[in-house]
Amino acid sequence: MTSHSERLTFARELAERAGKLGMEYFRRLDTLTVEAKGHQDLVSEADREVELFVRRELAQAYPDDGVIGEEHAPKAGTTGYDWVIDPIDGTANFVRGIPAWCVVIACARDGVTVTGVIHEPSTGETFYGERDGGAWLNGRPMRTTASSSLGDGSLGIGFSNRRETAAVPGLITDLLAQGGVFYRNASGALMLAYVASGRLIGYIENHMNAWDCIAGLLLVEEAGGRIVTPDPKTVLKEGTVVVAGGADVYDAIHALGAKFYDI
Amino acid sequence: MTSHSERLTFARELAERAGKLGMEYFRRLDTLTVEAKGHQDLVSEADREVELFVRRELAQAYPDDGVIGEEHAPKAGTTGYDWVIDPIDGTANFVRGIPAWCVVIACARDGVTVTGVIHEPSTGETFYGERDGGAWLNGRPMRTTASSSLGDGSLGIGFSNRRETAAVPGLITDLLAQGGVFYRNASGALMLAYVASGRLIGYIENHMNAWDCIAGLLLVEEAGGRIVTPDPKTVLKEGTVVVAGGADVYDAIHALGAKFYDI
Repeated sequence: MTSHSERLTFARELAERAGKLGMEYFRRLDTLTVEAKGHQDLVSEADREVELFVRRELAQAYPDDGVIGEEHAPKAGTTGYDWVIDPIDGTANFVRGIPAWCVVIACARDGVTVTGVIHEPSTGETFYGERDGGAWLNGRPMRTTASSSLGDGSLGIGFSNRRETAAVPGLITDLLAQGGVFYRNASGALMLAYVASGRLIGYIENHMNAWDCIAGLLLVEEAGGRIVTPDPKTVLKEGTVVVAGGADVYDAIHALGAKFYDI
Repeated sequence: MTSHSERLTFARELAERAGKLGMEYFRRLDTLTVEAKGHQDLVSEADREVELFVRRELAQAYPDDGVIGEEHAPKAGTTGYDWVIDPIDGTANFVRGIPAWCVVIACARDGVTVTGVIHEPSTGETFYGERDGGAWLNGRPMRTTASSSLGDGSLGIGFSNRRETAAVPGLITDLLAQGGVFYRNASGALMLAYVASGRLIGYIENHMNAWDCIAGLLLVEEAGGRIVTPDPKTVLKEGTVVVAGGADVYDAIHALGAKFYDI
């Protein structure tokens, strides 16, 4: 057992409990009319409440660790460890009733991700891993794709309103011209988990916040894939460009991304 | 009860039983190495076996109806009714272990869809409806989106290697320029079900085969949305262009599609 295994076990259980709480809100949305005004409010409440639940549990178990999340102000720690959490990744799915959303709990030490958990309540899948310790999906080891060509599998594509989307069509044109296809289920963390488990050949996004990507990026590395390594000095506060893929197809994905983004 | 309700009830139960059979294969894939050679073979076997199961059940219950499916030769009927089935829609997902795949069972009378069922085993959701009778998701009535703008929600985008994909980047450029976002989970039938349930604002694809689209198109209509109506004389054999959306956003979706496809 490495030094981070205890935190990983804790995070796995916590993510699954947080997923249950999120699911209660998700089911309540179902009982509202699809376009009811209350939807966005209920989703915002779900986001906040799930994050507060995760923060309370972390504060009890690891009171001296820092916590960084999407919904509330960061809490500084004294141990060098920071928990980086996204209570509901894929909020646009959640609000519309699309089951592809997940709970993300990562832990970084001095800015380097050491554990990552991505839990999808709708399917009951938990993707998790530990620096230098491996990556698993519901107890089975994960491996990234063995594909060596963009034409052999689907590439996840992400974008957000934080950055210019002008490059996206060019990237897609280039990908299609090389015989590839794109995939976008609107949950970046889940798509990275799919890269780690070999379901997607890779993933590209101009910018992701730390809580959306560092768990998934660790899983990709631990599952044998390659990534653009985030800068430990800046990633937790500023986020990072995201390029990830199976080891043999990574160069092609990186070359595609480098045409359009500053990598 | 209208005259098609009996066939709809039968189709719902059949789709859920077929989903269980498909799920047995899907779980077996899990036990293989992700990139094992045997994957594609097992998926092809799953496709064939699930279709054979559905055909056997249909032949017992409605021996004089026709049957048209993706995997086996069409069977002509004498009643005017044709069952149109896709045992596993989203095969590319299925083979990679992505849970977004579904069983599709539609019934057409003289080329006009009268019942449609789309069942997603991984989430346990069944979307179903009947001509002039309504559309439901797991027993609750479905409504398409109330959005009136491309910027308010996600648009499903499909494409296949049957047709030129050159128009796809242009369509995406235009959509993003209008403040919209695209969604592609690689199961056309499931994305149409998401349009019917108001989760996506609409869907566009240059060409879909009947077994992939006529169930979903009926659901969209019955849930209050609008579509490009397939030609009853040709759709079962030749497929159709697919444009679908909520009533208030349909004109914008149609205008977008008409720039790139022959509508």
